[in-house]
Formats: sequence, C-alpha cells, structure tokens
Amino acid sequence: MVTRRAESHPHFTNRAMRPMLPPDQGVPAMDAPLHSILDDLRALLGERLSTNAAIRADHGHGQESLPPVQPDAVAFVETVEEISKLLALCNANAIPVTPFGAGSSLEGHVIPVHGGISLDLSRMNRILAVNQADMDCRIQAGVTREQLNTHLRDAGLFFPVDPGAAATIGGMCATRASGTNAVRYGTIRENVLGMTVVLADGRIVRTGGRVRKSATGYDLTRLFVGSEGTLGVIAEIQLRLHGIPEASSAAFCQFTDLESAVRTVTEVMQAGIPIARIELLDDLQARACIAYSRLTDMEPLPTLLFEFHGTHAGVAEQAQGVEEIAGFNGGRGFRWATDAAERAQLWKARHDAYWAALALRPGARGLTTDAVVPVSRLAEAVMQVRAAIEHSGITAPIVGHVGDGNFHCVILVPEGEDGQERAWKLDQQIVGIALSLGGSCSGEHGVGLGKRDFLIREHGAEALEVMRAIKATFDPRGILNPGKMFPD
Amino acid sequence: MVTRRAESHPHFTNRAMRPMLPPDQGVPAMDAPLHSILDDLRALLGERLSTNAAIRADHGHGQESLPPVQPDAVAFVETVEEISKLLALCNANAIPVTPFGAGSSLEGHVIPVHGGISLDLSRMNRILAVNQADMDCRIQAGVTREQLNTHLRDAGLFFPVDPGAAATIGGMCATRASGTNAVRYGTIRENVLGMTVVLADGRIVRTGGRVRKSATGYDLTRLFVGSEGTLGVIAEIQLRLHGIPEASSAAFCQFTDLESAVRTVTEVMQAGIPIARIELLDDLQARACIAYSRLTDMEPLPTLLFEFHGTHAGVAEQAQGVEEIAGFNGGRGFRWATDAAERAQLWKARHDAYWAALALRPGARGLTTDAVVPVSRLAEAVMQVRAAIEHSGITAPIVGHVGDGNFHCVILVPEGEDGQERAWKLDQQIVGIALSLGGSCSGEHGVGLGKRDFLIREHGAEALEVMRAIKATFDPRGILNPGKMFPD
Repeated sequence: MVTRRAESHPHFTNRAMRPMLPPDQGVPAMDAPLHSILDDLRALLGERLSTNAAIRADHGHGQESLPPVQPDAVAFVETVEEISKLLALCNANAIPVTPFGAGSSLEGHVIPVHGGISLDLSRMNRILAVNQADMDCRIQAGVTREQLNTHLRDAGLFFPVDPGAAATIGGMCATRASGTNAVRYGTIRENVLGMTVVLADGRIVRTGGRVRKSATGYDLTRLFVGSEGTLGVIAEIQLRLHGIPEASSAAFCQFTDLESAVRTVTEVMQAGIPIARIELLDDLQARACIAYSRLTDMEPLPTLLFEFHGTHAGVAEQAQGVEEIAGFNGGRGFRWATDAAERAQLWKARHDAYWAALALRPGARGLTTDAVVPVSRLAEAVMQVRAAIEHSGITAPIVGHVGDGNFHCVILVPEGEDGQERAWKLDQQIVGIALSLGGSCSGEHGVGLGKRDFLIREHGAEALEVMRAIKATFDPRGILNPGKMFPD
Repeated sequence: MVTRRAESHPHFTNRAMRPMLPPDQGVPAMDAPLHSILDDLRALLGERLSTNAAIRADHGHGQESLPPVQPDAVAFVETVEEISKLLALCNANAIPVTPFGAGSSLEGHVIPVHGGISLDLSRMNRILAVNQADMDCRIQAGVTREQLNTHLRDAGLFFPVDPGAAATIGGMCATRASGTNAVRYGTIRENVLGMTVVLADGRIVRTGGRVRKSATGYDLTRLFVGSEGTLGVIAEIQLRLHGIPEASSAAFCQFTDLESAVRTVTEVMQAGIPIARIELLDDLQARACIAYSRLTDMEPLPTLLFEFHGTHAGVAEQAQGVEEIAGFNGGRGFRWATDAAERAQLWKARHDAYWAALALRPGARGLTTDAVVPVSRLAEAVMQVRAAIEHSGITAPIVGHVGDGNFHCVILVPEGEDGQERAWKLDQQIVGIALSLGGSCSGEHGVGLGKRDFLIREHGAEALEVMRAIKATFDPRGILNPGKMFPD
C-alpha cells in the first residue's frame, strides 16, 4: 500500500515521518505492514474496515491547509469494545492509529502522517443518557454538538461549548475546544465530568464520574482533554449541561480605536457583568462585513458584539451596564435587542465574518490563526499583529473572542507559488507576538502538526519533558496519533 | 531518631508504613537515616532546618482525627530553589518529604507516616503580582485565602474559593479544595491558571500560564491540582480572580421535608438563577443551631440558605425567583436581605453550624464526613445517611453544599474506648451510601489517609492502575508524601 507523503509545510517535513519516540526505545518502524493484522481487523469489523481509495482519501485530511496523507485503512468502530480490540491488535503490531471524528480539525490532527489506521468514530453517535435533574448527559464520542443540542431542546437544556464547526464532541474534547461562549460557560475542559477512554494497549479506563466535584485521585479526565488522541481514544463522555436561559439579549457598539474597545471589555468583566459572548471585529473585518452582508448601519471601525443570557430584566440590565461602560470609553452607535430576529441582525457581521473575510479577495483560501494573550495585552497584540500583516502585504482581518484574549486572523492565502508558505510564515509571526506577550500559540484549535515547534517556547523544556514522560507511560510504543503535538 | 508510629486507625495500620512502591522497584527502606543528609540540609537552610521536639510535634498532624506521626525534621523553605535543592537531596537519599501548609487537612495529608522531612511552606507567603486588568494574580504557595482577599480588597477583586479553614492556597490546590462558593465560581480546579511545581528530583516545572484558556499540551496544572503532594511540590500559583459584586443578597427558607428542599435546589439551578452559595441544614442541624445561636425565628426543619451576587436589581430578582420556586415546593418562612448585617443574621445558623453541632454534646470532638452524590440523588443519600446515623446511635447532624451534592455530617465522636472506631465506621458507611448512588468519597477534603481504601471502588482498578503509573513516572523512588492517596 502506498501512502502519500507531504513534504512542503515547514512543520511537516520528513522529520514528521519519523516515529515520535527515538528508535532506541524499541519502537518498530512505523511502516510495519498493516497486512499482518488485516485479517484480524476484518474479522473484528467486517465491511467496516475499509481500504477503499475514496474513503482513505476522505480520511487523509481535516480542514487545515496542510497536504493530506492517506491512511492505509479506515476502521469505522461502533463500540468501546471494538476500539479496545483494535488498539490491542495495533499496539501489538506497532501500527499507528489516528482517531477521526468529523474531520473539522484546523491543525492537522486527523492526518495519519505515518499511515496505519484512521479510527473513524462518527458511527458512535448515540446519546446514551440525559439526566435532567442533574443537568448532565452521557454520549458516545461521535455525537456532534448540533445533534446533542437538537436532542436537548425539549428538556430545556443545552450544551454551551460552540467552536463554530460541526465537530464531534469527542474531537472537541481531544483538542480542548472552546468558542464564543467560553467567557461565561467555560471551555470544554470545564464541561466534561468524566469519560471512557481506551488506552493504547486496549485497556478501557473510566475517568471522573457523575458528581459535579470530587477531590479523589489524579484528574485523568483533564489529562485526556486536550491530549489530541496521543494518550488514548476518547470513546464516551459525561457532559455538564446548562439550562436554556429565560431570555437573551444582544448588543452592538463601535469604537474609533482598538484600545477603547478592549478597555470596554476589561471594564465590563471587572464589573462582573455575566456576558455570554463578547466578540471583537477589527476595522478591516468590519469593512469586509459591511461589504459582504450589506450592513448599512455599520462603520468600518473596531466593533464589539455582546450577548447576554438571563432573565428578561437581567439581560436588559446587563445591556444597559455595558452601554454605560462603552459610552464612557467613546463607544458609538450602541444598539441592543432582545427579539431573536433583531439579535441575529446585530450579530450578522460576526456570523458572516469568515465568508466576508474570504470575499475580500474572491476565490481566496483562508488560513485561520488562533493566538491568545492575557486580556490586558490584547490591544497591544492586535496592533502588533496588524503591523506584521501590513508588513507581509497579505490581507488578514481579525476577529476575536475578546473576553478571553483569543483572536483569529483569517489569512487570505496569497496567490503564487510561495503563497501558502508566506501565509504560514505570517501565522508563525503572529504566534511569536502572542508568546512574547505571555500568550499561547493556540486558544482552541490545538497543536496538531502546525503548532508543534512552539511548544517548548510556550511551556519550557522542563514541562515538555514531563509531557513526553506521560506520553511514554501511556503509549510506550507510540502508536497513538504519532507525529502530533510534540516537536521532533 | 525515633518517630512515633500510629497503629490504631483502620486505614492507618502497619500497612501504611510500607513504602508505596513495591520493594522490587528498588526503593530503599523509608527509614533510611536522615542524618546522612542533615549537614547538607543545614548548609542549605541554616536554622530553618529544625529538629526541635515541639516543632516536630506541631508538624505531626493536621486537623484529622488520626494519631499523629512526627517528622524527623522540619524544613522551613523560603524559595523555589530551596525546595528544588532539598528535593534533589532527599530523592538521591530516598528520604520521604511531606509538604505542610497551614496544617488544616482533615484527612491526614500532612502526617509524615514514614517520618523524614516535613516541608513547611508557610514562609512562602508573598503575593508576587496582582494584575487588575486580567483579574489574576501570582502567589507563593503559603499564602492563605484570607491574606489574599485582604490584599485584594482595594483592587475590587476577590478569590472566591472558600473551604472555611484558614488554609494555604498551595494546600487548597494540593487537595482540590472547594467550599460554599463552588456552585457559582467553581472549585480551585477552575480557578488556577498555572503553577510552578518542583518535581521529586528537584526539577522545576512551570505549568499553564497567564492566559484564560489554551489548547496546547497536556494539562499539567490540573494533574497537580488534587495530587495531594504525591507528584510534586506546588511552589507558586497563578490564580483567577473575580470582581467583587456590586451587591449581595441572602435568603432563608424552611421545608417540612428534605425532598422538597432538594427539589427546590434542582429547580433553582435549572432555571439558571446564578446562586453564589446554597446550603442545606437537616432538621437535627437546624435544632442544634436554634439552641446554640438562639434563633427564635427558625424551626427545627430542613433549611436552605442562599446567597446571590450581582447588581442591586439582579440580586433582588434572583431572591424573588427563588422565593417563587421555594413557595411552589412548600417552602415556609422565606426571608431575604441585602443589608450586610441582616444577611449575616440570616446565615448565622450556617456560620455557627459546626460549633452548634459540637454543642449538642458538650465536650465532644467532631469527625467531618465529605461524601458527594449527583444532586438528583441527594435527598435519597441524606435519608439513607440519616437512617445509618440513627442505627449507629451516634449524634451526627448534616450540612450540605447542596448545589453540587456535597454534604458533611459532623459525627460527634462517642465517648468510650471504641468511640473513635465507631465514628470511623459510620464515616465508612456514609461513603458506601454515596458510592452506591454514583457519588464520590470526597467532594473537597481529599483522600489522604482516611479515604484510600475507597479509591478502587470509586474509580475502578483500571483508572487506579493508570494513576499509579503516573505516580511512578513522576516520583519513581516514592519520596513524595508516601503512604497517601493510594491504597496499599
């Protein structure tokens, strides 16, 4: 079987093709022949073990801008036990296994860089239990956020973590996903109560539980959240849910300069106003949105969008509190609404932001960055990033989950042979700016392939050494999503 | 040097004296002579390395009801580097090291069951930085909650995690502390952004960072939170802070039966009312409080106490929302207040609850249990626990952090030779009830010595095996707080 190899990305060279653990740790070559266990896998999964070319091609990439690599086979598992048996078999034969959910990763998590098995969990999409009184549920890892929220609606509950994409919740756990609601409801880390995880050797481990808090034992749940499929395969998840608020309101406000917008955010949060979402558009993104969504009552200025959840009186009061603070900081054109249609209109700029950005140069592809800084450094970070963008000559508007200092640039990949490389280089510069301001290279997309080289700078050599020791303890043969997260 | 050994507790027998790791892993006997490194330690710490009998006795116990064991020496460290050098020395010589903060542990965490060094962090009590705009701070591990909140008051910020005791924040991190505010602000787990931790061999590791969220690398911060000093010594902590709310209100309500009280809680939470605290007293505890605090307007009935944080209008609305739901569930005597003095009066029963419980039998000692169950099982759990208490013939009123299903019984240790043993037995029965209802043996006090034997039942053999593997990776010689958390 021939697997396509990718060579062109600066973080994705031949180096990435080597096993993650050094050869002296007894790791067999990653190209160990899959055919040695093919019969066993077929006995386990039947038709659900596929070597079909189209299916392999589908599982060779996510939504990143990296070159794909096909797996040797795709396994569509349906039960925890199947995952366990498959991993035991692959571990014994040193066959790489790369978990695959909805394929919405932006950092190459699902690319099987060493070939082997793409472990597709999308058929594990059953909602196993919803406990209304405890506001929690248990799901299989392949359930998507939308599917869960549709299921929950009649119970008056919702799951708040919203990364935008139609991701599976297993994938969201693996990449420590977040989204616009995180400022009020936390990231996925705060909303997972427990898991069933299958370890590299097939052992099935239950972590956490149904209680809201516990002070017993190491926090294995949080260790698997964000482990990007490198420590175990997340099979089932116990999630915290929240009551659908009685009322929502939205607000919109523009500023002559970025600092005033960011100061408004800081002051709103210090005042303890429980914002559900707070999003920033820079002036370029505002201009893009005006053109794309034909927003006649918006100016090409730094813009803040708010959403509040609570009682009817509460959301009105929250909006008024924000208006006051925004006004004090020179905010203009403040508008707010509680009606669903009007709220959608106020947020239209944000909802269409990605497409509006792409429309700045019709036909362009976008590369989305994911840096995060302390909120106090956000204005500074965005100004420096804007300067780097201008210097690069590339078009890249900025939107930000400004309540937690996380901002995305949609880099419009320039035309020409070196376009992709220039876009990657700009992404790296933006990460460099964030790190120099005490930030992180990724707020919610994860490390995957694209951000591996920043891990030492962000966490330090000692922490990285500890992470490698944990990896070696959990997956001594290095079969789980090899080539990801750790720098070579 | 002779160390006193404790033999009488069912969880604290000779078994606990053995090194945690089996001898075939090359762990030298734990009674390795300290004198071999005494000179080195004195060179490092001078007078701050003490073998004074009174100081050793002070460091032989926390607030648990277990027999004390004295350390061979007490080290009063002042810097991260001192911790590092001390641990490197102890690791090389297999000398046990037991971290000590304020000595407020209720589960024997600070008892140096194998002797060796008690590592006292109380002099590391500097507040290193407060970032008002980011609402975070960096502190040394020996800073106490009260000290921090006094320091923060003028900045309009506060640190919400309140375990009741005058604990150090390092100790709170190590035991995954929580308290009455957790229902709104989360436990310490949700309020730690990063740490500086010293590993067993002296390596200094920085975890997390200053950003509110990051999706890069394994969550080492959460791995150390709740690790009870068995994976590393927490030296510095980056904490999330919160704005002091504009207004607070308190409410009080009584119910004819426990189920109605618990149902009220569930419905309040489902309605999304952002309660800051919600506490339950059972009828026996209510009776104790009436007698102790002379509360003429309270009946000996199941009682709920609420606290709300927000704007003036917001806290009024929240109290009204709760009154409505409580009324629907047969709540009586509903009162609420915003004035500080009146609020204190409403909460007086809760503030004095522990002393009121002890006063039920003057001169009695209390043993506090810490079980937690899913909120939906709370009424059932408390009814079963009440039956077990009655069957035991022991007096033990119940107070609960009912918003997260965590409840404490204050077991009045009976008189007589077997009194302590009967109290421990009742504690074990209560844990058994919680576990049978899908709960945990500890919501916030931790495992320590007292709850070790429940870990397998709560987490399963597979998870415990994974935890042991992590322990062996971090502390291969087993010097860090040996004898704690893991069953023998």
